[in-house]
Amino acid sequence: MRNLKLILEYDGTNFIGWQRQKKGSSIQGEIERVLEKILHQEVRLISSGRTDAGVHAKFQVANFKARSLISAQDIRRALNSLLPKDIRIKKAEDVEEDFHARFCVQSKIYKYHIYLGEHVSPFISKYVWHVPFELNYSVILKEMNCLLGWHDFAKFQAVGSRIKNTSRCISNVGFKKSGYFYEFTIEANGFLYKMVRLIVGTLIEVGRGKFDSGRIASLLRGDDVKRGSVAPPQGLFLWKVIY
Amino acid sequence: MRNLKLILEYDGTNFIGWQRQKKGSSIQGEIERVLEKILHQEVRLISSGRTDAGVHAKFQVANFKARSLISAQDIRRALNSLLPKDIRIKKAEDVEEDFHARFCVQSKIYKYHIYLGEHVSPFISKYVWHVPFELNYSVILKEMNCLLGWHDFAKFQAVGSRIKNTSRCISNVGFKKSGYFYEFTIEANGFLYKMVRLIVGTLIEVGRGKFDSGRIASLLRGDDVKRGSVAPPQGLFLWKVIY
Repeated sequence: MRNLKLILEYDGTNFIGWQRQKKGSSIQGEIERVLEKILHQEVRLISSGRTDAGVHAKFQVANFKARSLISAQDIRRALNSLLPKDIRIKKAEDVEEDFHARFCVQSKIYKYHIYLGEHVSPFISKYVWHVPFELNYSVILKEMNCLLGWHDFAKFQAVGSRIKNTSRCISNVGFKKSGYFYEFTIEANGFLYKMVRLIVGTLIEVGRGKFDSGRIASLLRGDDVKRGSVAPPQGLFLWKVIY
Repeated sequence: MRNLKLILEYDGTNFIGWQRQKKGSSIQGEIERVLEKILHQEVRLISSGRTDAGVHAKFQVANFKARSLISAQDIRRALNSLLPKDIRIKKAEDVEEDFHARFCVQSKIYKYHIYLGEHVSPFISKYVWHVPFELNYSVILKEMNCLLGWHDFAKFQAVGSRIKNTSRCISNVGFKKSGYFYEFTIEANGFLYKMVRLIVGTLIEVGRGKFDSGRIASLLRGDDVKRGSVAPPQGLFLWKVIY
């Protein structure tokens, strides 16, 4: 049995998320459907992790087992010609039998985009969270640095997950601004359900003065204080998966 | 009666074009519907010109007459809160009674984007024409310069127009490249139906060697030679309207 690895990107706007579900168009479902057509076999696609409805990926990794003799290059071409244009396969290659897109992940990088201007251009509105407030940049930057290292992120997990061990290590954070456009970057060895969006939602509340600074550290200690809301999905990008 | 001028932008992907029609969602239709709700009067929106289904605008101008006393600023805010996010009003202001968005136009600038790489990212595929060929950049640049000045563009008009006088003056052309991304710019005192897309379609045929260089000049002289096909709508942007 061959083991094939795909590197792909997608605009999540029109999908119900990565995971195949009974109803609606999912990224996994679209790719599996097309692969089954190309390979004439059942395909079970494993990704580095799910992304929610409306979340984008600039770099997602998946793998699947295949019996077919079609070259990886030709599978990629066939996929790109049959998939909707909002999913593109950047690379396909044969990998060792034991490569597993989820279990072998070393770390993942997510980016989150916000836009502060009064008016959001129609050409970026599907890729940013519109936050029309004044934000204290240096307060947010300082707050973000508290995230670095191993912490229990239990307070940054949305309901609907069955994960028990909520400790994760954040190895890198970034916060850049360019005009009204702000970009958060978080790299970790793993992410809980809606963790990035809950972190960003909390950072915005600190940045606009609704929460005192130190709220992130307080939540990481498990204090009984409020976190921010889940930031909307369209600002979130799975940016890189590292093996 | 007040005369109000709007400056707006739109992502044309999900519209049947600027013009209101019996069926489907048009940019004109959406804005008129919302204005009628805000102003409690019938509204007839005049634009600098129509754009076709799938064509975008970074800067479109329109005007309409109103009896209401609501300030231009408040009309803009109400429009942006009620319109779909792929249409944004950048500015609204009261102008002189005789301002007419179409008749007063001095010139218009269109840009057309093409992408030459093998793989088009899902984040740009709605805004470029994918042209996966080698193109001769300097041949296209030279060919474009033949467009400058007054010419009869009859050969660059698609069927479906009743325009008799097909002379137009192109005052500016540009052709820039940045990696696999190429941008055409054309400024003229007026454009015929699908003129930009027919020019770009022809330039691409010259650039890939299917037509000899000199084809544009030949078509402008009225020679009986083939023009290129109409380039697809998603690469086209109305970029500026000058009064």
